[in-house]
Amino acid sequence: MKTVVVRNIQRADAKASASLETLGVATVHEALGRSGLMKPYMRPVWAGAQIGGPAVTVMAQPGDNWMIHVAIEQCQKGDVLVVGCTADNTDGMFGELLATALQARGVKGLIIDAGCRDIKALHEMGFPVWSRAISAKGTVKATLGAVNIPVVCAGVNVEPGDVVVADDDGVVVVAKKLAIEVAQKAEKRFADEDGKRKRLASGELGLDMYNMREPLKKAGLVYVDKPEDV
Amino acid sequence: MKTVVVRNIQRADAKASASLETLGVATVHEALGRSGLMKPYMRPVWAGAQIGGPAVTVMAQPGDNWMIHVAIEQCQKGDVLVVGCTADNTDGMFGELLATALQARGVKGLIIDAGCRDIKALHEMGFPVWSRAISAKGTVKATLGAVNIPVVCAGVNVEPGDVVVADDDGVVVVAKKLAIEVAQKAEKRFADEDGKRKRLASGELGLDMYNMREPLKKAGLVYVDKPEDV
Amino acid sequence: MKTVVVRNIQRADAKASASLETLGVATVHEALGRSGLMKPYMRPVWAGAQIGGPAVTVMAQPGDNWMIHVAIEQCQKGDVLVVGCTADNTDGMFGELLATALQARGVKGLIIDAGCRDIKALHEMGFPVWSRAISAKGTVKATLGAVNIPVVCAGVNVEPGDVVVADDDGVVVVAKKLAIEVAQKAEKRFADEDGKRKRLASGELGLDMYNMREPLKKAGLVYVDKPEDV
Amino acid sequence: MKTVVVRNIQRADAKASASLETLGVATVHEALGRSGLMKPYMRPVWAGAQIGGPAVTVMAQPGDNWMIHVAIEQCQKGDVLVVGCTADNTDGMFGELLATALQARGVKGLIIDAGCRDIKALHEMGFPVWSRAISAKGTVKATLGAVNIPVVCAGVNVEPGDVVVADDDGVVVVAKKLAIEVAQKAEKRFADEDGKRKRLASGELGLDMYNMREPLKKAGLVYVDKPEDV
Amino acid sequence: MKTVVVRNIQRADAKASASLETLGVATVHEALGRSGLMKPYMRPVWAGAQIGGPAVTVMAQPGDNWMIHVAIEQCQKGDVLVVGCTADNTDGMFGELLATALQARGVKGLIIDAGCRDIKALHEMGFPVWSRAISAKGTVKATLGAVNIPVVCAGVNVEPGDVVVADDDGVVVVAKKLAIEVAQKAEKRFADEDGKRKRLASGELGLDMYNMREPLKKAGLVYVDKPEDV
Amino acid sequence: MKTVVVRNIQRADAKASASLETLGVATVHEALGRSGLMKPYMRPVWAGAQIGGPAVTVMAQPGDNWMIHVAIEQCQKGDVLVVGCTADNTDGMFGELLATALQARGVKGLIIDAGCRDIKALHEMGFPVWSRAISAKGTVKATLGAVNIPVVCAGVNVEPGDVVVADDDGVVVVAKKLAIEVAQKAEKRFADEDGKRKRLASGELGLDMYNMREPLKKAGLVYVDKPEDV
Repeated sequence: MKTVVVRNIQRADAKASASLETLGVATVHEALGRSGLMKPYMRPVWAGAQIGGPAVTVMAQPGDNWMIHVAIEQCQKGDVLVVGCTADNTDGMFGELLATALQARGVKGLIIDAGCRDIKALHEMGFPVWSRAISAKGTVKATLGAVNIPVVCAGVNVEPGDVVVADDDGVVVVAKKLAIEVAQKAEKRFADEDGKRKRLASGELGLDMYNMREPLKKAGLVYVDKPEDV
Repeated sequence: MKTVVVRNIQRADAKASASLETLGVATVHEALGRSGLMKPYMRPVWAGAQIGGPAVTVMAQPGDNWMIHVAIEQCQKGDVLVVGCTADNTDGMFGELLATALQARGVKGLIIDAGCRDIKALHEMGFPVWSRAISAKGTVKATLGAVNIPVVCAGVNVEPGDVVVADDDGVVVVAKKLAIEVAQKAEKRFADEDGKRKRLASGELGLDMYNMREPLKKAGLVYVDKPEDV
Repeated sequence: MKTVVVRNIQRADAKASASLETLGVATVHEALGRSGLMKPYMRPVWAGAQIGGPAVTVMAQPGDNWMIHVAIEQCQKGDVLVVGCTADNTDGMFGELLATALQARGVKGLIIDAGCRDIKALHEMGFPVWSRAISAKGTVKATLGAVNIPVVCAGVNVEPGDVVVADDDGVVVVAKKLAIEVAQKAEKRFADEDGKRKRLASGELGLDMYNMREPLKKAGLVYVDKPEDV
Repeated sequence: MKTVVVRNIQRADAKASASLETLGVATVHEALGRSGLMKPYMRPVWAGAQIGGPAVTVMAQPGDNWMIHVAIEQCQKGDVLVVGCTADNTDGMFGELLATALQARGVKGLIIDAGCRDIKALHEMGFPVWSRAISAKGTVKATLGAVNIPVVCAGVNVEPGDVVVADDDGVVVVAKKLAIEVAQKAEKRFADEDGKRKRLASGELGLDMYNMREPLKKAGLVYVDKPEDV
Repeated sequence: MKTVVVRNIQRADAKASASLETLGVATVHEALGRSGLMKPYMRPVWAGAQIGGPAVTVMAQPGDNWMIHVAIEQCQKGDVLVVGCTADNTDGMFGELLATALQARGVKGLIIDAGCRDIKALHEMGFPVWSRAISAKGTVKATLGAVNIPVVCAGVNVEPGDVVVADDDGVVVVAKKLAIEVAQKAEKRFADEDGKRKRLASGELGLDMYNMREPLKKAGLVYVDKPEDV
Repeated sequence: MKTVVVRNIQRADAKASASLETLGVATVHEALGRSGLMKPYMRPVWAGAQIGGPAVTVMAQPGDNWMIHVAIEQCQKGDVLVVGCTADNTDGMFGELLATALQARGVKGLIIDAGCRDIKALHEMGFPVWSRAISAKGTVKATLGAVNIPVVCAGVNVEPGDVVVADDDGVVVVAKKLAIEVAQKAEKRFADEDGKRKRLASGELGLDMYNMREPLKKAGLVYVDKPEDV
């Protein structure tokens, strides 16, 4: 890893990013062809937030948050900070002070593949964080990493400027060159779902709405009347 | 595994089931002789719900929710849907649309040994789910499983029609032939606990209330006055 | 392990303990030189509580809560009960009845390296518990352990009388002989943080406030303008 | 759970059991329609053994091996002992002495959803064990369980007399009423595999041998010449 | 994810790849600036193999090995097949038949972020596999993925043609454009280590050989004579 | 944590230590009253070694092996190095070079609650290591810890000079003041086991040898003849 900070990154289309933020993780992930989703161990430290925006990326060392301090200077209003780590680590690399600094710059939230602390204060400030752990474990500032290089975070490769969307269901990443196309697909999907919701709410079965009876039969599904008939 | 759907199942006694629902998981589990409890990784996706009812069972494949669509047709008002999986899997096999369909049929909730998504919407709808993970990971509809056969879900063998009780403490299963007997025991246990609670609240020690001092002494417990005496 | 109960323990300085309780886990852990923190798997069963007080310690056997009953008699108003276990175990060793008994004695809360149940009732009672799991699994009263000997709980050695502080960030332990010194350091740290918070909120960068630019450069950090320059 | 020992169980057909033992876990699991496999955390404590035989089942309590002593009396030559546990537990419930007793009765091996110890001695004796952990943690003999009732072991429901097959790939369970049918299917599968192995070894592609090219194309798979074409 | 197969990929320099293979994982990882290492859950299914070569990459779906069949056709002599998965999954996606096909094409080994089976046969064939699990769980061929696109495997982003080195210590990935430079650094590092090994074997202390005494003192390390002096 | 090195420690009785080494982990752990055992995640990086000796202790920071270099100077012939870590960490803090230095001083082996690398070389050198992970992840030398203070390692509090015994079953720690007493108990236990082994090998049942039939009956165990009688 080069210990480097890239100053100028290209951010994904702002309008597409705003649309993806509104649609939420599950819809965006489906529109992406069911890819780009971070591992489910990434959970919000407080529930109810929904954010989306271009990624500023950090590769940090375990137990060391030096590069997060470095990254803050590279953040702009509306960004989402994404922190990967060179080894599995749950130390509390992030807390109230760093959140204060990020909030001052208009950053929307943090995605960190490590631990987070001061979660009560973060909730009161309204600064959302998705992390792999909650831990008060203090960290050092001793070893370099990098800022705005591609990083793997919770199983997904994130390039600087990619759109990151996060809500109570998890975190999904959309490559910046796909943002507009995916936003359109996601909007269409969302519109379609509303119709389906109404039909299902009225009692129609998915078996009929999706025309599944024939393919199920073809695949070999058999109906019997009683347990003894199995 | 036979890829089969059993249409007619025998459901546990409705009155016993209602009683078990009211008493909650810890009391029912004790009344069962401390058995029938699902693994503690099964957690509610939102807190505060308490349900109980006869199980409609599904054996699904990892990353595939086809059989849940099939199972909905077999559900009746008051049922609880129980989904086991042929391999450990955290994919989001269940979300708002399926919940809408289940709610339309009067199903009380879902127990799934896999992932769940749309948890904010599920909370708003008031549809409770206990799952092993929260994940937006989309699933396919490609491989058959079975409905209303015995399934192992989170470490417990569930037969169709067994009573499933779930609350913030977890999920417990009562075999349908034991439902009436266990409900009676659980009610008795609940009544007893109230008296104990009052005595303990007044400052009486469990050591005295349960007559433990003699057995502890017999088992070899020694009291000393200072750390140096150990 | 000697199966023994120590009746008289020395408790940490009350004023220092009160101060540590107010300052919270992250600040106390830093003041301790970043040590004394329990593993992050220890989580509150309900959010929002913050407690601190001298430890009464229990070494229990897996699936057996007999020694918790024994320990209650040794607790005084303001204590925190700390339960270690001789093997990894998630059984629900603690619930509403034991909490009622502890609350009657004025105990502030429980730290248990095992499971806990009746979490809804515990929340309603306002009795806070930090545990490794939530589980309704019932336990027996068959095998002895010990009370008020040093116990390892969630990775930390706890001596009876040590100060235990717990909040939404986790659990930290301060040796009783260090309590006064650590409380002073923690208070100073807390005062310092307030000034830093204000500066960061006003937009000042940590890079400047902490004078990091020079050491980062010395360590070899390089800034480039574009991704292609890496 | 009834605390009971069932003395007489019906064992699966001996010839089918012998055949399943020879074919091994992967082949048997496929012949079963890809079911019956225990969770992959079940690993042999020493490598290289392959066994199969009717199950004598035990439901044990965490940290308590009393019921294993009870079960030995119910074992016959050629049996496989299968131990489930009422809660997740890694204590060393089994070691050299119990293995000596089982070997004296001609039992082929042990499947235990808990811990095992004395693994060097077990290897020297040639007594194979599949367990969820290796641990020297001693256990007590204090709480009853049951013998020869249905038990869930590592995610699979095992009825007494079912055929259990175990090798370096894991453990699979065949219901006794299906043993003959599954043995036939597994033998056929094994015979088929030999031909396929030869064709693949000669360089033929699975794509051609299994006629996958057409279905892949139909499913939407696209070939491009260069990364830039994606 | 585009469901695509890229036919022509650029492979890393062959001589550098051969050198990296010889030097092994730990040395290569250090020469890379301590990056590129897969998560430590990736373990060899049999011990003692050491391989290195250009990656052919696969993105597979959980429980589905269709794309591995597709990928084999794209492999050349000396390649290493690398399989990522869209969700955490331990199913046995790979076994003896696929290994036979890969061995027929001269592929050196497999890295798979999922499960593997037939491990005894793989050992006998001398075909090495690094996986996250050993499991006989059978898989389907139902859903498309992709071949020779960038994939995240066990926490590392792997581009087609990158050098993958694997041995008993784990798996490391070297970007193809860095292969020559890293091979040179790794060779130098290896040469240096030999001298250090001899000095340490003769009893020289690392404290002296690395001149650590001064920096340790400066960092604040204190020596005391007796435990009471701490 | 004080960043300190204690030069002179009191080591446990040499004869008792030698005896404990010979008896092995399971026997010593039982003689200790079933305590002192490290968590079962501590596994040998190669099988077959059995060691015992007084502990030199290290508290290290995650991803940092500086203090191991410091500790080597404090080791004497026959010692066992025990490394705890301030946070859960699997980085490869130890490898061939450090092993060479320890072997040059006559140290018997290493117990480390973190990762280890170069395991092939360690096996060839005959230097045994018990660790929580195998990982090539490189570490830094940036942050102080301490040497020869009490450390919690894998769930056990280890004081400098305590006897550490390790074999294929795991790792156990005997407080130095108890070493002689525990060695005597363990020897007696070992002698007793030999007689039991012979009786069990001859076919005698543990039920009879341990006189369990009466207590089992008293505890409520019931024998029935057929499954239907349950």
